[in-house]
Amino acid sequence: MAATPAWPPRSTPRLFVDEELHRGPRRIDGPSAHYLLSVMRLKVGDAVKLFDDRTGEWLAVVDATNKRDLDVRLTTLLRPREPVPDLWLCAAPLKKGRVDWMAEKACELGVARLVPVLTRRAVVDKPNTDRLRAHMIEAAEQCDRTALPELAEPVKLAALLRGWPSERTLFFADEAGGEPAAAAMSARAGPAAILIGPEGGFDDAEREAIRALPQAVAIALGPRILRADTAAAAALSIWMAVAGDWRTGDA
Amino acid sequence: MAATPAWPPRSTPRLFVDEELHRGPRRIDGPSAHYLLSVMRLKVGDAVKLFDDRTGEWLAVVDATNKRDLDVRLTTLLRPREPVPDLWLCAAPLKKGRVDWMAEKACELGVARLVPVLTRRAVVDKPNTDRLRAHMIEAAEQCDRTALPELAEPVKLAALLRGWPSERTLFFADEAGGEPAAAAMSARAGPAAILIGPEGGFDDAEREAIRALPQAVAIALGPRILRADTAAAAALSIWMAVAGDWRTGDA
Repeated sequence: MAATPAWPPRSTPRLFVDEELHRGPRRIDGPSAHYLLSVMRLKVGDAVKLFDDRTGEWLAVVDATNKRDLDVRLTTLLRPREPVPDLWLCAAPLKKGRVDWMAEKACELGVARLVPVLTRRAVVDKPNTDRLRAHMIEAAEQCDRTALPELAEPVKLAALLRGWPSERTLFFADEAGGEPAAAAMSARAGPAAILIGPEGGFDDAEREAIRALPQAVAIALGPRILRADTAAAAALSIWMAVAGDWRTGDA
Repeated sequence: MAATPAWPPRSTPRLFVDEELHRGPRRIDGPSAHYLLSVMRLKVGDAVKLFDDRTGEWLAVVDATNKRDLDVRLTTLLRPREPVPDLWLCAAPLKKGRVDWMAEKACELGVARLVPVLTRRAVVDKPNTDRLRAHMIEAAEQCDRTALPELAEPVKLAALLRGWPSERTLFFADEAGGEPAAAAMSARAGPAAILIGPEGGFDDAEREAIRALPQAVAIALGPRILRADTAAAAALSIWMAVAGDWRTGDA
């Protein structure tokens, strides 16, 4: 976790801006302006951090506050866009609260890409990608990420497997068991993905199709049954710890 | 994850009963009866699974349904109470939704004991232990656990450290950094606990007190800032994977 300098204060608001940022003046309007003016009550001279998922994170100072917008000046590039471990989360959409939570955790834990996967037993067949993206952006703002996970278009499981990249390992938690997760993941360096099924699990035909993929590796996440969102967070955490960027003590 | 026999069906309701169970007839009333009769609509001859956190999990068959209660007969001890890895989660209470989620995940991931810890910056100073217990029971019913995590009385951090068991390692995620989590945990076998601070983190005096404990080991959970509930789920998952009962492929 990152150490905090004395200025700007820890409480400095942090916002994602979906445009390439550069040094100099900038106007902020819309919901972001409402948040900074009415919720955070920023005044002239206050600091705000902006990141764009392109150049990195910038320090900006408020030059003027107006009724519906405010003028800020980007003074310093605080950090370039962070390197992101090459891990995807391919997950069936879950019920509202759980999928929101999964998107938030996937972003905090550091995935590079979230792929909504459509399966036969999915409770939800039309994932709300705007909603998923909003939750990932909020999580990135909260957890100091300077990179946003890419949100892929929802894809059917069969199509996902058909187009699977040859060099990317696909770890999936199979009810029939598999290699212990930590051993399986630490033994396989390189690009990876974690595949999580819906609440009801994959059906037999789907499980067969996944197992038939040469890049697929069945993993076991212990003797207790985990909910889909729990399995996702657990598998992402273990991969980060044994194969991702949690292997050094840097914080 | 456990394989499912043909009978009783996967959908068989599963309930925790806070009394020692034994073979033979039993009356179920109260909220459990309401759930089985009005929500699950059980009929005579239907199956229900009961577990008591003492003997294990029992198969019961419905003998009679009445207006407000039902009579079942416990026929078979399906599984003895499961062995539980010796891991505690010591965590500061969080805002409602997040602490509920943390209790649920702690139970699913398999902790033996949840200890609410009172710290200076805690947003919540009176943890609702009934509520925490209800969430752990629901999670145990859902994830097929036959053992419930013990819920300890809330304790102040200073008292927790003062009475800390000499043989139990205390892993805590320190903003100042620490050993990589997987390496730190796999290197230390035996009883362990994970300590998670409140949303605002521990204050400097608290961090000093924790670091001064001989059994304390500071761990790092990567370069990204994690929310308290995310850090808890990540640390529990990594411990289970490298030091707990996720090291075998059994599922």
